[in-house]
Amino acid sequence: MKFKSKNLDWLAGRPVVILGEEISKKMNVHVNDRISIRHGQKKVYAVVDIFPSAVKKNEIGLSHEISTILKTHKSDSIDAGTSDGLIGGRLIRKKLHNEKLTAEEIMTLIQEISSNNLTEAELAYFVSAEKIHGMSDDETIALTDAMVKTGKKLNWGNQIIADKHCIGGIAGNRTTPIVVAICAAAGLKLPKSSSRAITSASGTADVIETLANVELSLEEIKKVVEKTNACLVWGGALGLAPSDDKIIQVERLLNLDVEPQLLSSILSKKIAAGSNHILIDIPYGGGKMKTIRDAKKLGKKFKKLAKHFNVKVKPAYTLGIEPIGNGFGPVLEMQDVISVLQNKKDCPQDLKEKSLFLSKKLLSLCGVLFPGHKARKMLESGMAYEKFKEIINAQNKSNDFDKRVKNLKLAKYQKIIYTKKTGEIIKIDNSKMNSLCRVLGTPETISAGVYLHSHLGKVEKGQKILTLYSESKQRLQEGLKFIQEFDPINIK
Amino acid sequence: MKFKSKNLDWLAGRPVVILGEEISKKMNVHVNDRISIRHGQKKVYAVVDIFPSAVKKNEIGLSHEISTILKTHKSDSIDAGTSDGLIGGRLIRKKLHNEKLTAEEIMTLIQEISSNNLTEAELAYFVSAEKIHGMSDDETIALTDAMVKTGKKLNWGNQIIADKHCIGGIAGNRTTPIVVAICAAAGLKLPKSSSRAITSASGTADVIETLANVELSLEEIKKVVEKTNACLVWGGALGLAPSDDKIIQVERLLNLDVEPQLLSSILSKKIAAGSNHILIDIPYGGGKMKTIRDAKKLGKKFKKLAKHFNVKVKPAYTLGIEPIGNGFGPVLEMQDVISVLQNKKDCPQDLKEKSLFLSKKLLSLCGVLFPGHKARKMLESGMAYEKFKEIINAQNKSNDFDKRVKNLKLAKYQKIIYTKKTGEIIKIDNSKMNSLCRVLGTPETISAGVYLHSHLGKVEKGQKILTLYSESKQRLQEGLKFIQEFDPINIK
Repeated sequence: MKFKSKNLDWLAGRPVVILGEEISKKMNVHVNDRISIRHGQKKVYAVVDIFPSAVKKNEIGLSHEISTILKTHKSDSIDAGTSDGLIGGRLIRKKLHNEKLTAEEIMTLIQEISSNNLTEAELAYFVSAEKIHGMSDDETIALTDAMVKTGKKLNWGNQIIADKHCIGGIAGNRTTPIVVAICAAAGLKLPKSSSRAITSASGTADVIETLANVELSLEEIKKVVEKTNACLVWGGALGLAPSDDKIIQVERLLNLDVEPQLLSSILSKKIAAGSNHILIDIPYGGGKMKTIRDAKKLGKKFKKLAKHFNVKVKPAYTLGIEPIGNGFGPVLEMQDVISVLQNKKDCPQDLKEKSLFLSKKLLSLCGVLFPGHKARKMLESGMAYEKFKEIINAQNKSNDFDKRVKNLKLAKYQKIIYTKKTGEIIKIDNSKMNSLCRVLGTPETISAGVYLHSHLGKVEKGQKILTLYSESKQRLQEGLKFIQEFDPINIK
Repeated sequence: MKFKSKNLDWLAGRPVVILGEEISKKMNVHVNDRISIRHGQKKVYAVVDIFPSAVKKNEIGLSHEISTILKTHKSDSIDAGTSDGLIGGRLIRKKLHNEKLTAEEIMTLIQEISSNNLTEAELAYFVSAEKIHGMSDDETIALTDAMVKTGKKLNWGNQIIADKHCIGGIAGNRTTPIVVAICAAAGLKLPKSSSRAITSASGTADVIETLANVELSLEEIKKVVEKTNACLVWGGALGLAPSDDKIIQVERLLNLDVEPQLLSSILSKKIAAGSNHILIDIPYGGGKMKTIRDAKKLGKKFKKLAKHFNVKVKPAYTLGIEPIGNGFGPVLEMQDVISVLQNKKDCPQDLKEKSLFLSKKLLSLCGVLFPGHKARKMLESGMAYEKFKEIINAQNKSNDFDKRVKNLKLAKYQKIIYTKKTGEIIKIDNSKMNSLCRVLGTPETISAGVYLHSHLGKVEKGQKILTLYSESKQRLQEGLKFIQEFDPINIK
């Protein structure tokens, strides 16, 4: 059927058409159905939304994604149809029926995902099939390859490009800024991009954002890295392996961990960023991996997959039975990072030692001699701190690092929790600690979160154990209720 | 965070909030994320859409679904949050991990689905889990029960209320209007609601709509049935088992058949409509059931499930190796139906005999004596045709049945296909016939479709085999291409 186009200045996140009620009835389509929209030789698939007041009769409203692809002007004639399906749906159905997909089929599927041609529900079907049926090695290789090829890339020539990644699941654990600062000070190049929080109290990008602009373009990243050896940016809008972002968005709806997707997701982003020496922190015992055996299994899969892409991966197995660091929440974690980089005596020792351990591993992977000694020297000499300052200032295009640090503020409502008995802290639940922070307002409220005064081990009655921070009295109350109900810390 | 509400007069199909870019950044939410919206004591979960020009800074646009639930006025203060999750997601994750759900958990889940609190992607996860892991008998009972209880119901007191349903998959096969007319003429009560086409050339509702209004309210249905013993309406907007409609919408994205969902879906709709004597047509050999064994297995499951709800179900196993009737497409199928009801000599005999067979089974299930004889008498005496007229006129609140029949028109572009050789038609593919009709423009274009001149059996060279109908030359060409490429009819 033919209609007139109306370009809506509307970034919908995927191609969406706005129909009036009459047209939707005529076409027999409902909200969230998908239809094809043709304009001349160009064609795109779009999700239907019905919004009578936005369009006239015989007019179809096009989201920005569609008008960009079809290059439509006001009142162009467009043809809308419901008959033809996409091949992606058929491929997902195949995988749901537990049949293997070929490399070519996976490429087609990932292309359709990158072009926004599949709905979130279709992606959820794909993720379910991956989760329940698993993926063969060949499928995982093809998936990684397709995710890299359908996005942008950073090219660094033949240099050694280092990266460090943690599979997540541990509260706090903000080692990245410290490791990047140490290794960059030691001469490595690290174009490090990180995510924002998905289910945790804050992501590395959220933490860095308390001091620096993290939304850099690929060109700006190049400049900052050439100048300082490293960057600490948000990876979400760079267009590296874009299909991965879409799949992750669907996974996080149910907070699912899908192993083949995790492998492809991490490696494709690193490969697209041009990294070729990658340290992967795999905590065990309390995060995503219950035992060291699980962790080593995953590490082996990373190494195997990386081989196909001529990339060196080194897994680091670290103990994940409790949170790392004392602060949880963007500002609180940044304060931990800074106290480590400043070599403060009272800095969180676990965070410091873990960062040194990971730095040593990464330096060693990149061929640096005496890596343990070098890492400690960079940190304790203050060179890592200087490097961190340089990176932050370069990202901000300014020199006001110290002022920014001074301006870091914690939330105005605070509540200290004391132990009720003498005994031993036997468990601190990572995921409950993260949930507690979310209740208090993180990551949106950067000044909110939790400070943990004691880690696993002996405590006296009446000792400080937690301080809660929130900008809202109500949320602070909710946080206290959360602690009563869910007991994130067990004392025996 | 606190914002001002802006009620958008926008029926989005589910609760949607429109955010500007600044707010979305502040809250760290993306398109299709879900957030909670509170107003006073009321709270609802909504899907995020980002549409900067629709709202001012500090303003959140609310779709009609939300403003109705929250009863917001212009510029009310609302609280938007990202921290708290729904329990539905947790239950779906449980099922994805192949754990059984309790009746209580299934009720919670279905309530959340009915209240539009889950996204389509979350429903897709649930459907995947049901499809791959299956459901236990107890789970299927709980699912059916929950789907009935979360919707509206028709109440007919202690009467026998009959219904007839086909699980689908066969092209044409428009027996419902004929069976309803015969059985209603014989004195049964049938408040029959049907669906529109999902993947077929047309659904029963599409076919009836060529002559009658099919969008009746529950009150109107009551009136029509009291007057004429039956109705033939569209079930989609009646609010009977509404969660089912939402789940089906997600299933159809990939055209999936999920057995426990099929069982619950069919039975919950019938139970909600007040039916207690239900005939289920289960074709085998070419549609959804490959063998009679599969068909009987499904039939048994229907009977077992129905027992729990004090409802009588009789499965009818019918041969589904080829299409039933000659016309495929709304008007073409209505013409077949009318020629059978008018006892035309050249009416499609397969459609007539199958309708008589099903009528006999349904009359027998409802305790009518000599059901086979009765059915044939109703049809051949013209009483079924008179009953059909009555029903259509009652739905239209008019007496212009004959005029409407005379006005039925086929599409202006037609193309006859002849056999190229003498031989035997050994296969007519149901699903390809349906796809061919969709290419020609059905069900949106009611006059489009295919007329099948010969069924399985001997044919001479140069004999008419198909006539294609379309309102567009281009689509007619595409139909011809489809035949060349996919060969819906095999002659040997």
